[in-house]
Amino acid sequence: MDQLFERLKTPSDSKIVLMVLDGLGGFRTPQRGSELFEAKTPNLDRLAKEGSSGVHTVVAPGVTPGSGAGHLALFGYDPLKWELGRGALSAAGIGFDLQSGDVAARVNFCHLDDEGMLTDRRAGRLPTEENERLCLKIREQADLGDIEFFLQTEKEHRALLVLRGEGLSPLVTDTDPQAIGVSPLAPAPIDESAEGTAACVRNFLDQTKKILEGEKANFLLLRGFDTLPDLPSFDQRYGLNGIGIASYPMYRGIARIAGMEVPSSAAGLDGTLQALREGWPSYDFMFVHHKATDSAGEDGDFDRKVAAIEEVDAMLPEVMKLQPDVICVTGDHSTPSQMMEHSWHPVAFVMWGSRIPADSVETFNEEAARQGGFGSVMAKDLMPHMLAAAGRLMKFGA
Amino acid sequence: MDQLFERLKTPSDSKIVLMVLDGLGGFRTPQRGSELFEAKTPNLDRLAKEGSSGVHTVVAPGVTPGSGAGHLALFGYDPLKWELGRGALSAAGIGFDLQSGDVAARVNFCHLDDEGMLTDRRAGRLPTEENERLCLKIREQADLGDIEFFLQTEKEHRALLVLRGEGLSPLVTDTDPQAIGVSPLAPAPIDESAEGTAACVRNFLDQTKKILEGEKANFLLLRGFDTLPDLPSFDQRYGLNGIGIASYPMYRGIARIAGMEVPSSAAGLDGTLQALREGWPSYDFMFVHHKATDSAGEDGDFDRKVAAIEEVDAMLPEVMKLQPDVICVTGDHSTPSQMMEHSWHPVAFVMWGSRIPADSVETFNEEAARQGGFGSVMAKDLMPHMLAAAGRLMKFGA
Repeated sequence: MDQLFERLKTPSDSKIVLMVLDGLGGFRTPQRGSELFEAKTPNLDRLAKEGSSGVHTVVAPGVTPGSGAGHLALFGYDPLKWELGRGALSAAGIGFDLQSGDVAARVNFCHLDDEGMLTDRRAGRLPTEENERLCLKIREQADLGDIEFFLQTEKEHRALLVLRGEGLSPLVTDTDPQAIGVSPLAPAPIDESAEGTAACVRNFLDQTKKILEGEKANFLLLRGFDTLPDLPSFDQRYGLNGIGIASYPMYRGIARIAGMEVPSSAAGLDGTLQALREGWPSYDFMFVHHKATDSAGEDGDFDRKVAAIEEVDAMLPEVMKLQPDVICVTGDHSTPSQMMEHSWHPVAFVMWGSRIPADSVETFNEEAARQGGFGSVMAKDLMPHMLAAAGRLMKFGA
Repeated sequence: MDQLFERLKTPSDSKIVLMVLDGLGGFRTPQRGSELFEAKTPNLDRLAKEGSSGVHTVVAPGVTPGSGAGHLALFGYDPLKWELGRGALSAAGIGFDLQSGDVAARVNFCHLDDEGMLTDRRAGRLPTEENERLCLKIREQADLGDIEFFLQTEKEHRALLVLRGEGLSPLVTDTDPQAIGVSPLAPAPIDESAEGTAACVRNFLDQTKKILEGEKANFLLLRGFDTLPDLPSFDQRYGLNGIGIASYPMYRGIARIAGMEVPSSAAGLDGTLQALREGWPSYDFMFVHHKATDSAGEDGDFDRKVAAIEEVDAMLPEVMKLQPDVICVTGDHSTPSQMMEHSWHPVAFVMWGSRIPADSVETFNEEAARQGGFGSVMAKDLMPHMLAAAGRLMKFGA
């Protein structure tokens, strides 16, 4: 099944736009509709009227998607088959070019007392500049022999560790005990293939402990050991030359992992439009990411999420002027402002193009979309529909 | 899962009718409903009112089915698991008894100029009698040693080549360059298991070129090398004694591959009804194929497709007089007249019988069906519902 598209893909001049409003999905309460229901979206409604709507389940029923899973699914990769772990996402998030075979882990600077017991798992939310100074100090002094390592500041107490070399394995246990008053855990191999890697990590931590002696942040906790999933690229899988346009590093990183080109950060909706116009002649597939919907949802700010949706709606006519053959607007998961976090609730989508039938839906929101031409589908099935509607899939069988 | 029905099947006197309107599915534009929406279908509407409706996806989301895949799916065989290639379909279509291990290919008589370049890929749509004369000439003069070959006229410029012998492989490339002014391609092995077969085909073509020297059709193009898929028969899988009633050879052939009996060609709807009445006492499962909907769709003739649907509707009361226990009416794929070709869009179906609940749907078309009791399902799941409604599946577990 997963080779099906590689087999059926066929070249075309058509252009596909996928607009992702991060955390778009919300939910109705007895008192009020979802943010999308309440938003005034004349341009999205026009797409709904002329195209087909539906709702998608991102990973599996009842399963709340992380950002990596949500986007992989929208890109047509089954997130249950290809997992993006915390290490790979962190690398993506700071624009680190993680390579095949690298092992990445999430790092917390922490503080140990004289007995080696954890007193603060975040080292007092270390200032970012301190983090940078300490990362540099460790990079200058530690040495892992044949294994190259990278230690990159993320923000405050968070950093990224990447090991690069022969025969590394991500099957190493977390060292963060998720409690204070106890000592950090020793990194252990989950199976014997990881014995060398676990030893290398222990060696790294031993050296680090000495290097950081006397500092306020005097040790590191590691979790989420991870490698880059062996993802067939967008080009290999679909024959698409894709571009990812996003202002947040993590989403640019995920697009890069799927093999899209990623220009430098697009600042706001104006920057997004400019990047879209500049990329238009050179790319077949334009992934456009809008973060503000999710941020508002996470802050529990219903009205701000409504406004973030309306902003995208207002920008839509400019996108349509570029004359995409197929456009799909949706979210990568729900972030209902009532819940202030990601949720598992199905997300509305609308798809528009000359080979996409009109259905009887006339507005863009979860309830209308559920009655739409697509009904209820899995997120990973949106991509095949976009490809088909863009004339990019051949017939199956004679 | 695929052995489930063999395990649960149970005998019954019940009769099932599956009516396939080829290429039935269409799509709504903002201006107009689909052909099925616009057609006046009082009898199909009655089935919709008394039974349950739904829409089915034939192969996978966004994937356009060929005729073989479409019918296999309706017969309950997952088309991603069992593939029917062009050679097997052609063999089936002319009633050639393709055996396990045979390699079949589709043949076009063509014309080459003195330099060996293609001037006509169809040799002026050769009269069928000429095709028969030339096939006989080649059969009489060519010799492939241990490999037996069959060359059978199909119609006009089309014929079927079958190789029979030890160790043959279908992994041979097409020789049809799909263009004129160039020379035909040499048959090449796709992997080394096919080297002997490719050499045998080259030998056959070399001999043929000499035998056809001076004829108006002076060479052959071969494509779709293929073997018979190892399909469990309808009887083995479902305990059903099936009959396929169709006027086009290809559909009779597909029915035969699934192990149904196939009477000689049914001419038009009168012939179909007659074949149905004659077969009624002897068969449990009646597959009735109607080609005109697809032909009209491929010709881009919206009104003729509407008329073809209405013709079937008008015939339906005569079918119902035979008192089937279960009847299902649907298509094997969409052929929207706007697209003039097969498409991936889901197809409406209606199922009727004493064990099939009524839903709130009152007319038979894509939009109504989507809101019906079955909702949106895969085509291969229709057959289990028909079996169950016909009392032909036992309870699973105690």
